[in-house]
Amino acid sequence: MRYLRFGEVGQEKPGVLDSAGGIRDLSGIVDDIAGDVLGALPRVDPESLPLVEDHPRIGAPVGQVGKMLCIGLNYSDHAEEAGMPIPDEPILFMKATSAIVGPDDPVILPRGSEKSDWEVELGVIIGKAAKYVSETDALSHVAGYCVANDVSERAYQIERGGQWTKGKSCDTFGPLGPWLVTPDEVGDPQSLDLYLDVNGERMQTGNTASMIFGVAHVISYLSHMMTLHPGDVIVTGTPPGVGMGMSPQRFLKAGDVMELGITGLGKQRQRVMQDG
Amino acid sequence: MRYLRFGEVGQEKPGVLDSAGGIRDLSGIVDDIAGDVLGALPRVDPESLPLVEDHPRIGAPVGQVGKMLCIGLNYSDHAEEAGMPIPDEPILFMKATSAIVGPDDPVILPRGSEKSDWEVELGVIIGKAAKYVSETDALSHVAGYCVANDVSERAYQIERGGQWTKGKSCDTFGPLGPWLVTPDEVGDPQSLDLYLDVNGERMQTGNTASMIFGVAHVISYLSHMMTLHPGDVIVTGTPPGVGMGMSPQRFLKAGDVMELGITGLGKQRQRVMQDG
Repeated sequence: MRYLRFGEVGQEKPGVLDSAGGIRDLSGIVDDIAGDVLGALPRVDPESLPLVEDHPRIGAPVGQVGKMLCIGLNYSDHAEEAGMPIPDEPILFMKATSAIVGPDDPVILPRGSEKSDWEVELGVIIGKAAKYVSETDALSHVAGYCVANDVSERAYQIERGGQWTKGKSCDTFGPLGPWLVTPDEVGDPQSLDLYLDVNGERMQTGNTASMIFGVAHVISYLSHMMTLHPGDVIVTGTPPGVGMGMSPQRFLKAGDVMELGITGLGKQRQRVMQDG
Repeated sequence: MRYLRFGEVGQEKPGVLDSAGGIRDLSGIVDDIAGDVLGALPRVDPESLPLVEDHPRIGAPVGQVGKMLCIGLNYSDHAEEAGMPIPDEPILFMKATSAIVGPDDPVILPRGSEKSDWEVELGVIIGKAAKYVSETDALSHVAGYCVANDVSERAYQIERGGQWTKGKSCDTFGPLGPWLVTPDEVGDPQSLDLYLDVNGERMQTGNTASMIFGVAHVISYLSHMMTLHPGDVIVTGTPPGVGMGMSPQRFLKAGDVMELGITGLGKQRQRVMQDG
């Protein structure tokens, strides 16, 4: 099943895609795709639900995200382009949840920002609380997967004092979606192709098979440090091809268009704007 | 005014202290001390509200925290004990909001953890959304102040791969409270004494006058990178005296008791437990 949230910012309604790709309104059955609903997503026949006739904005496919945990340098070839050693264990940082937007919302560069970059990533949405879970059991805690763009201001991230959070947490720097796709439909999360284009030019190409730490390992690992709650999102690292790794380096500017996607999880399209 | 939240975990009710230090029940006036309520906290006569007769658990003084932003090495003498240079601009990291607990709840060390440490800090609770605010205007966005203990697992923070988040985000590692004290009652946030004892022995002593970056500067600075929303919490760094800085180093163990406080903001008391 492919769940989504549609409508204006802050007023999104839950929905589900039908077999023709139309949006069906789930708001008669659940209030939101969020919290405990993620542990028991409704298995309904989409065709039995009202069709949404217009073309609404699509929001992030999960509401009320408690924390957004991000794994750094998790593709060996991306670690290489970043000039960083292959990590011995997952590198963790957080992105502020206030950065989350829908998959096609504009990405707005903060005032004075000059070094923003793209990162297509596989997003994992937690469905059931996970604490001290084994790698074997880890994937049973997943509600679904989604496309994520871990937009990153490299000067804020690296040149302005120690930790990465500043460059990851700007408003609009966390597009998620379009859909939460359930695990049964995704199959093996370690065999998905990812890509990202800027202005129609292919920048990133990868496959989740190249992850250093796979999804099950990451969930188990994190759950030994903190409880993962329903609605928490983990983004699992990016393949090679970011602008920071190019020679010369290349960063986003107003008017650029990012298009990105992952096998079976749909695609995103963001126009870049500069905050005045 | 001193606002608080009382009751069992996840079922806290809003309250306010009366002139004798008794808890008065605010739940007839607001649902929670959270979100937009923080921008217009009710100015009622506490004595007109029902007195809470028993001695309930005290929760964190703010609910539904969106993000918990932490400033590192913000007291020059603590930077020195940590062997780190004085930062040129605020160092930012995040603590998972799932780590937040009440001021007197137990602090539970994760399985296998051996290097957990204490950090008394001034907490700042945002009341009105702040984006690109000036330092002059910054404090008008504050709903109130509170005591915070930024409990930190140093091995997770420093020895296990790059970023600090892992050591900061364990469940129960974010005691807040007992109260949200409004700015009119706090006065100058840069002249407050802080202390922390372990098992009755004074470990940390400091004054917010020694902050490298004051509260107004930090709010303005962060607001140029991301929007600060009502209910966001900023913890502003710790004075000297953490266990990591001692020779030999000293860390928390099961049975230890931390007691900490800040002028006018009340005190916390946590018993340390080890997860089995």
